[in-house]
Amino acid sequence: MKINQFAQIDVDAEQALTELQNISLFTPTALTADLRTNLAHFLHRCFPEALTPSSQNEAIANLLLDQTTTVSAFLAAPTTLTAVQFYNLALQLLGFEATTDFDLADPLKFMRASQLAFADTSPLDNATLLTDIYLLLTTHTKLGLTYLDDLADRGFFATYTGPRPLFFNGKAQAVFDTRHLIKEVVYVEAPLDTDHDGQRDLLATTIIRPQVPAELKIPALYTANPYFKGINDVDDLLHNVDQELAVKSAADTPLPTSTTTLPKPRSVQGRAQQTEKIATDNSSYALNDYLLARGFASVYAGGIGTRDSDGIRTCGSVAETTSTIAVIEWLNGKRRAFTNRTDNIEIKATWCNGNVAMTGKSYLGTLAVAAATTGVAGLKTIIAEAAISSWYDYYRDNGLVVAPVDCQGEDTDVLAKLCLSRQKDAADYAKVKAIFADELAQLQAGQDRTTGNYNAFWDERNYRNQIANVKADIVLVHGLNDWNVKPRNVEKLWQALKTTGVQRKLILHQGQHIYINNMPSLDFTDMMNLWLSYQLYGVANNAPAVIPNVTIQDNLAAETWRGHHDWAPADRKRQLYHFTPTALTLEEPTDAAFVTFKDDNRQPFEQNKRDETRWLNDFITAAPAYAANQFRLKTAPLAQPLSIDGNVTVTLQAAVDQPTGLLSVLVVDYGQAQRLGTTPSMLERKGYRLNPAGQTDDLVEFKLQAATDYKLITRGHINLQNRQSNTTSLPVEPGSFYTVNFDLQPTYFRLAAGHQLGVIVYASDMGMTLRPQTVANYKLDLNACQLSVPFTKH
Amino acid sequence: MKINQFAQIDVDAEQALTELQNISLFTPTALTADLRTNLAHFLHRCFPEALTPSSQNEAIANLLLDQTTTVSAFLAAPTTLTAVQFYNLALQLLGFEATTDFDLADPLKFMRASQLAFADTSPLDNATLLTDIYLLLTTHTKLGLTYLDDLADRGFFATYTGPRPLFFNGKAQAVFDTRHLIKEVVYVEAPLDTDHDGQRDLLATTIIRPQVPAELKIPALYTANPYFKGINDVDDLLHNVDQELAVKSAADTPLPTSTTTLPKPRSVQGRAQQTEKIATDNSSYALNDYLLARGFASVYAGGIGTRDSDGIRTCGSVAETTSTIAVIEWLNGKRRAFTNRTDNIEIKATWCNGNVAMTGKSYLGTLAVAAATTGVAGLKTIIAEAAISSWYDYYRDNGLVVAPVDCQGEDTDVLAKLCLSRQKDAADYAKVKAIFADELAQLQAGQDRTTGNYNAFWDERNYRNQIANVKADIVLVHGLNDWNVKPRNVEKLWQALKTTGVQRKLILHQGQHIYINNMPSLDFTDMMNLWLSYQLYGVANNAPAVIPNVTIQDNLAAETWRGHHDWAPADRKRQLYHFTPTALTLEEPTDAAFVTFKDDNRQPFEQNKRDETRWLNDFITAAPAYAANQFRLKTAPLAQPLSIDGNVTVTLQAAVDQPTGLLSVLVVDYGQAQRLGTTPSMLERKGYRLNPAGQTDDLVEFKLQAATDYKLITRGHINLQNRQSNTTSLPVEPGSFYTVNFDLQPTYFRLAAGHQLGVIVYASDMGMTLRPQTVANYKLDLNACQLSVPFTKH
Repeated sequence: MKINQFAQIDVDAEQALTELQNISLFTPTALTADLRTNLAHFLHRCFPEALTPSSQNEAIANLLLDQTTTVSAFLAAPTTLTAVQFYNLALQLLGFEATTDFDLADPLKFMRASQLAFADTSPLDNATLLTDIYLLLTTHTKLGLTYLDDLADRGFFATYTGPRPLFFNGKAQAVFDTRHLIKEVVYVEAPLDTDHDGQRDLLATTIIRPQVPAELKIPALYTANPYFKGINDVDDLLHNVDQELAVKSAADTPLPTSTTTLPKPRSVQGRAQQTEKIATDNSSYALNDYLLARGFASVYAGGIGTRDSDGIRTCGSVAETTSTIAVIEWLNGKRRAFTNRTDNIEIKATWCNGNVAMTGKSYLGTLAVAAATTGVAGLKTIIAEAAISSWYDYYRDNGLVVAPVDCQGEDTDVLAKLCLSRQKDAADYAKVKAIFADELAQLQAGQDRTTGNYNAFWDERNYRNQIANVKADIVLVHGLNDWNVKPRNVEKLWQALKTTGVQRKLILHQGQHIYINNMPSLDFTDMMNLWLSYQLYGVANNAPAVIPNVTIQDNLAAETWRGHHDWAPADRKRQLYHFTPTALTLEEPTDAAFVTFKDDNRQPFEQNKRDETRWLNDFITAAPAYAANQFRLKTAPLAQPLSIDGNVTVTLQAAVDQPTGLLSVLVVDYGQAQRLGTTPSMLERKGYRLNPAGQTDDLVEFKLQAATDYKLITRGHINLQNRQSNTTSLPVEPGSFYTVNFDLQPTYFRLAAGHQLGVIVYASDMGMTLRPQTVANYKLDLNACQLSVPFTKH
Repeated sequence: MKINQFAQIDVDAEQALTELQNISLFTPTALTADLRTNLAHFLHRCFPEALTPSSQNEAIANLLLDQTTTVSAFLAAPTTLTAVQFYNLALQLLGFEATTDFDLADPLKFMRASQLAFADTSPLDNATLLTDIYLLLTTHTKLGLTYLDDLADRGFFATYTGPRPLFFNGKAQAVFDTRHLIKEVVYVEAPLDTDHDGQRDLLATTIIRPQVPAELKIPALYTANPYFKGINDVDDLLHNVDQELAVKSAADTPLPTSTTTLPKPRSVQGRAQQTEKIATDNSSYALNDYLLARGFASVYAGGIGTRDSDGIRTCGSVAETTSTIAVIEWLNGKRRAFTNRTDNIEIKATWCNGNVAMTGKSYLGTLAVAAATTGVAGLKTIIAEAAISSWYDYYRDNGLVVAPVDCQGEDTDVLAKLCLSRQKDAADYAKVKAIFADELAQLQAGQDRTTGNYNAFWDERNYRNQIANVKADIVLVHGLNDWNVKPRNVEKLWQALKTTGVQRKLILHQGQHIYINNMPSLDFTDMMNLWLSYQLYGVANNAPAVIPNVTIQDNLAAETWRGHHDWAPADRKRQLYHFTPTALTLEEPTDAAFVTFKDDNRQPFEQNKRDETRWLNDFITAAPAYAANQFRLKTAPLAQPLSIDGNVTVTLQAAVDQPTGLLSVLVVDYGQAQRLGTTPSMLERKGYRLNPAGQTDDLVEFKLQAATDYKLITRGHINLQNRQSNTTSLPVEPGSFYTVNFDLQPTYFRLAAGHQLGVIVYASDMGMTLRPQTVANYKLDLNACQLSVPFTKH
């Protein structure tokens, strides 16, 4: 077990004592007290569920200082306290088991192996005891929380009367009671009329916040969540992907444009201090829930077209961004909200200090990115996980329709319909059915599945175009195995942010499209607590310097996260690999060589019940049914490990016997090894506590799985007609050779020595591209093919 | 979607009005009011989250009565209300979506198909409106709750001032606030000293209960849960199953007996009104949580040898039962508990009305069965799910060591160690380490893995021996695909209970070892609410007559549960199947026929990484690697469906070329079909609400899976030396033929017409039996073999 605590910050002894005093653990007189007195005082506070000295003593009596000394015996008779004894005690308090987890003879060995912080001074004096206790309170338990969090969840702050909010080791603590939360709904008036009813769109906004004294203003964590009010079944809207690529004309089809005039704001008929609708929705993100008890309100809004709001869904449009930031503007005092949709009674966010952070994953994180690129006032930071930064990079690639994995046939129109949860209210839906049908037609025209080209529609949905507006500091989190929102989205945003002056942080994990808040190996929640305490409460915890610029989870070893200066910088050295008929080589080949492959997956794919996951596995292992449909090369076993960092690029010279063609590339790590799963394994259902009121998340961890023969590193696709750019269509003459050069998805991947780097060139990707029904024959001129791999020594 | 509501009870119009009045929905004057007035009054109460008339009107405005009539329009102008209109409205309130789920032109068609209750009188008059509203409140929403539960979860009872507890339609309602629960620990003094420390064992007991007025006494749902305080890793204690069967001697090995004297009770030093330790544990069962808000306390105890308690684990012994019922005796005022383990301050369960039900699954349910067989006062009923009724039937079968599936090598000693959570407290564990080592040795002697015979050790652990003591009414729940606690445990208990006078109910589902409280297709939670309201609060709801004696989930159709009079009665007709070399036949064969098979699974099993699940699949499909290790027969395709009900029995005449031998039998349904999964599929994570405070469970359902070629129906195993009984060992002469006749696990299984009934005879079962390493050769005399199948026309 390895525990990586990036957010455990160093403080000096004076600061430690002040903070211990803030939580009523020690007073300054402790410095002159006896060591045993201080230890006993501390231990009696370590069992907040035990309300009497007898009950506390019983709990203390369960602890051993070493194989032969009980803590009770130590407290009864004066002697020295060694570091070994103290850390035996500390580990038991942290939930580790003597003998099972660690050896009482050498607890420090376990602490080193687990990467738990400790101070190896022995014997302890009174002063080091206090700083060691401070350190212990900031150290993680077996269940992924700091020990102070663990104590808080067991009632430590039940009788706390000090200042609220409370910060300890730079992070906000659970001193607010979340048993009686205020849960309410207001209707924010957005400067939009997307449903063309002549009235500005009202947006139902859910606020969940702890009860605090009236004079305390608290910040808000806002999650814009189009799925918040439920989703619709869209199976019948999915596009057929079993079809030919189009022969494109050179000219772009002009898009229809529509102009609407914005109605005037509603005239305010009164002002209220109280909302009039209770929110009954479940929250959508455990990090928000965790921070509720620590003094951060949670705010959720579905946005235009979702249930209980006005408007229609427009998938990634400027209007959607306007809808998203309207809520921030209200929280920041710059826009109106009403208590209901009828009476025009205004209500202000008087409880809010005006500071807002956005959180969320996938579409939710995407809208955080969208909001940040407006520079809206009040938005101090975003924590965007697995976020889209350009919708073209979600649904298209190099002039091809390329679906997110497991989403074949989906597109902006399908997603718009999926999220139009107004459909759930029959009478309400009747009002917008026709308007929304028009919008779907416009989305279908704009997304243009026929050409797959980048156009004005996609350009509107490329948030990176507005990068210069960004004022909020940015945390980006992404899975290196996320084939839904592919890593290009985060990489291009990361690079673009370098042109701005904002603080930026990046965390890359080995998962696919998941949250990472609940793993013992990474103190993600603490990192975000530190960050948000700094951003929204102005706590001087040095968060931008403490949190690494880039944190990357290792793909070879479990529970290993490292800080890096950067990811995928443009100036990484590159290793060129050349193509011969039998291997990927470092030496440039001299003999001319051509190879051929077919594009004819259809029959075995049907036989395997159109199972896309199985297809990919069979394809990578060159199963007989697919062997003729690919050209596969491997390097010799690597003499040294290789750390790929950034965009692998591929150059191919290819001909096809059809007037259209596409090329797909997989880059693969071949070699038998146990590898991390891309979905974390369950450690304990409901094992991760979020607050003293008993809310939980599951406790999970990425685990090494049974040995496999390969691991997909990265992939990419291109339309042969788009060999010049994703906006320009050039003709394809059957039999003519064309050169394409394109980036595969960026990554950070360590290949172990002895493994082989592999590349597979093919055409249709059953899980991602259109699947032309005509059998095509491809030819590669190997001398003009190469793979360029950026690498690092780190 | 099919919804089976067994606990929705009929009441007359007068009773309905009284109950509506109890929840302040209507007063008796409603009978003389206008229909529209009553409907409007009701609808305004259907949105308890909307606190003002404007806000309520907005919610009402979202509803359609039919394709062209909004509810708002109907309420504005007088006209008739048809049943179609009312049930369109009702379905929307229940969370079903117009167009998507049902057709506004014919809502009753959907209600019939879903089995939702309705009253088809049209147009409605004022009186029928009221009874229809009553019916609607008791009908399930899309998410598996009654509509009144849904309203409660959204705040319906927030302003309720009527009587508590409140019963509606015979079931307790969520009128208690569970945001501020009392969570406390007491120490019950059991009449035991299992850790031989000269003091009676104190048992930590966790109580979770709502705050209620002092004069209200409430009943308790008690879950005895040995896993409650955590479990230990026991991998190094697992027994090696890759070994030969023993040649047994005829004589039984006598077991060591130990006698201990029971210390005197502690002398009480004072009495307390308040506990002094707060419980911080998570609860272990969602049904208990659901009932908390409805006026039932939850009580959890780990029992002897678990963390924070005295004693040691003894796995199924009489002492364990004594430990289990000590808590009931305290709740019922007949035993002492203390506030801590030091001061001998007594505390009474003054909040309890003395009525206790036990709940829980697996070991938890087992201890409920154990408690019931003592006849302990106060225990009114148990709801035992997947419970062991005799530990021999859990770890042994017919003189063989037979493991629960996925638990090869486990035994009573392993389980005792697994649950000895005192090990988690280092100093506490040191006190009992030696005593527990002695106990492990005794368990190992008693369980006697060498012979596998039934002996005094197992007889102590056969709760059915005490069936005559049972006073509590019994609900049994079991999975027909549970190969952990095998169905024999519930079937033999069910039959034994027929000799008692208690009420008994049985629910058989198609799952393996799971809970079934959170599925939309069955109102299990309501059934238990009805039952417990009757048992513990004495509500005259006729529960014993309302709930079917036996409820069985169909294995062919999804979401289909039917009431039956009995299961596996002894007098079921039987169909005999004879063995020929090529088929199972109805006609008795005339020609002599012998067949042979080997017992030699080892090599392919190792090659497949000892994957037991894969082994079973390969074995049933007669994969080449295993084809020589079995004799497999099928009937001709069935002309008629066949409903198997009870114990399939098998008679075999076999010889083996070794001095030991075992026979295993699988009975299989062969035929391509979509079949229900044995684990429910996730419908919505956290989608099943437990109470207004926001606690949830996942919403799940058994779904038809991708088509498969077969389904295992039942199985069984026998040691050839135990052909006479599980207590008598007879010698096996190599080459001699012996007749065995034994019951396979009981079941209820419907074979569709066109399918084939199959039987596989073999020796080692890699997932369940010992695996002899010597290759053995078996011979069957087919003329003396047959399969006897009990069947029913139902």
